[in-house]
Formats: sequence, structure tokens, C-alpha cells
Amino acid sequence: MVVGLMIEQQQRRGQRERIVTATGRLFRDKGYHGASMADIGKAVGLEKGSLYSHISSKQDVLRELVMRGATLFMAGIRQVAASDATAPVKVREAMRAHLRVVAEQPDLATVFLQEWRRLEGATLDEVNELRADYESIWRDIVEGGVREGLFRADLDTRFATLLLLSAANWAYQWFDPHGSLSADDVADRFTDIALEGMR
Amino acid sequence: MVVGLMIEQQQRRGQRERIVTATGRLFRDKGYHGASMADIGKAVGLEKGSLYSHISSKQDVLRELVMRGATLFMAGIRQVAASDATAPVKVREAMRAHLRVVAEQPDLATVFLQEWRRLEGATLDEVNELRADYESIWRDIVEGGVREGLFRADLDTRFATLLLLSAANWAYQWFDPHGSLSADDVADRFTDIALEGMR
Repeated sequence: MVVGLMIEQQQRRGQRERIVTATGRLFRDKGYHGASMADIGKAVGLEKGSLYSHISSKQDVLRELVMRGATLFMAGIRQVAASDATAPVKVREAMRAHLRVVAEQPDLATVFLQEWRRLEGATLDEVNELRADYESIWRDIVEGGVREGLFRADLDTRFATLLLLSAANWAYQWFDPHGSLSADDVADRFTDIALEGMR
Repeated sequence: MVVGLMIEQQQRRGQRERIVTATGRLFRDKGYHGASMADIGKAVGLEKGSLYSHISSKQDVLRELVMRGATLFMAGIRQVAASDATAPVKVREAMRAHLRVVAEQPDLATVFLQEWRRLEGATLDEVNELRADYESIWRDIVEGGVREGLFRADLDTRFATLLLLSAANWAYQWFDPHGSLSADDVADRFTDIALEGMR
């Protein structure tokens, strides 16, 4: 009986995971408001009623998807920031880490970078803070480069960071994971030009 | 009677203009799918029925807003491209022109840069072409700089253009028209860094 219960719980988790994944795809394609509960049900082959036994609302799934995206981006930048590489190397690695998320998890990346605005209440504030944290770790890396003397002393670190983040953040709009360039290729081409401007 | 008819036509045009403007604001705030006809009616103080006497559908207004945005961006870049300035000056002016649209017409800019994906059918193809045209004029400017010998000969012009466009395109997400920096200030800070990397 205990084994039966465990299998049932596992199946429920698997079912929920399928729903969350399918919803991420729908939010990316149609936007949060464009994807209805009926669309989600259709994508996973469930009636609306049984959908509600797995998730409480679209907003609930949006929160989960945004948090998963945040976790991926944060894990990447934190690992880069903690390394003892020089600032130019860190900038390159940070760009690679960001673009890998865009390439490997385009649904989560798009939801984190675009649909997060549809969050409501306290979660919206929480995500705003996470986004600010993410950007400030990038900026710390850039400022470290000025301190190390590897970026020029009069560099506008705020706008240098914004230039890098704009390239990273806009990529979900055009990057093709099946194209001829890998995430690392794209990251390197952007950083080659940007770093030249920061030295 | 003719004068009466003219005044009526003028009032209808004014009413339609109010609807289009209010819809642009709503599309920017809530996204195309998030803004309902009821929201639009509420914003302009009209019942759904009389709304339909001015516009045929939300899709119809989306098309009009995207085309207005496209017209503004295209007018800016074409004027810059046609000038006889050097490539670095053109890059700076192109960035300024783009950011002025973002600052002065944030609703149109956001709809053109983000909500255009919600267009359907032939209009979607048409807008895709306009966006490609816009980007190729930017790229021509960058390539001109290489030919003139003002940008380095081995510059990756595709990615240099993408870096500039990413900064320009992402700005609608964070630029505050009431902040301490003008559109021109922001454009100059980005181009100061990017041009340094292209020389």
C-alpha cells in the first residue's frame, strides 16, 4: 500500500511537471495573457477540472517558471563571479552562461525576461529584486575590471554593464538554437567587440 | 448640411484617434492578449458596440500601431543614412534617433518592438520585412565605417550591428523618460563605449 502511494505521488509529480513545461512553451509562444487554461489543458490532454487538481492558477505556474529561470541565470552568474579569473574573462564567461540558458531553456528564458511583468503582488517585487541582484553582480564584475586596471579608468561602468546586458537579454528574440552559431560563439562575438571598447 | 457632415467626420476621426492612442497604452501595459475590448471601451468611455463602429478588431488597431511605430523608426534611420556624415557620427545619430522614439512614443515603441509578434497573416510577414529593412540600414552604416577605414578592417559587422541594436531595442524595458538622462544622453553613453570597440 505504501509502495502504491509512492508511485501515485511520483505520477502526480510527473503530471505536474508536464503541465509546467507545456505552460512555459505556451507562455513563450502566446504570452501569459494569450495562453488560456483551455490551451494548457489541450497541450497536456487534460480537462480543465483535472488541471486544477495539479495547479491552482496560471499565476501560480508563471511564478514557478519565472523562479526556475531566475535560478538558472543566478547560478550561472554566481559561479562566474566567485571564480578567480580576471574581469575580461569573467565578462566572457558571464555572457556565455547567460546565452547558454537562452539556448538550452528558451521557454524559461523568455518567461523570465519578458513575461515576468505579468506577475502580481509580492512575487513581482521579489522578482524585481532578483533582477536587480543579477544586474548588480554583472556590474561588480565590470567595476572589478576598472579596479584591476584591465578596463579603462574613465569607463562608464553603468552603461558598459547595460550594453553587455542588453546584448544578453535581447538574444532570446533572435537566437536560433538550431542555427550555425552556438551560444558560446554568439557570446564570444559580442564580448570581443564590447571588451575592446572597455579596455 | 455639408459643414455638419464635415464636423461629424472630424469628430469621428478624433474619436478613432483617441481609441488608437488608448489601445497603444493598454497594449504596452497589459500586452495585446491581456487588453480586452472591454478594457479599451473603459479607457475611452465607450460601450463595446460603439467601439466597433470605429475599429473593426483589436488586430486592426495592433496593425495600425505597429505601422506607426515602424514609420517613426524608419524615418529616423533613413534620415541618418542619407546624410553625408562619417560612419561613427551616423552610428551616434542612429542611436539617438532610435532612443528618441523610445522616449517620446513609448507605447508605439513597445508595441513595435514586442507586441508585433501578435500580428497575424500577411501583416506579420510585412512587419518582419520592415524589421529586416531597419536592421539592414544599420548594418550598411557599420559596413560603411569599415570601408571608410574608420572601423577596424576585421570588425564582425553583423555582431557589431547586433550589439548596437540590442542596446537600442532593449531600452524600452528600462528607459525612464522622467529620469535624469535624456534619450540623447543614453545614446551617447552607449555609442561612446561601442564605437571604442569598433575602431
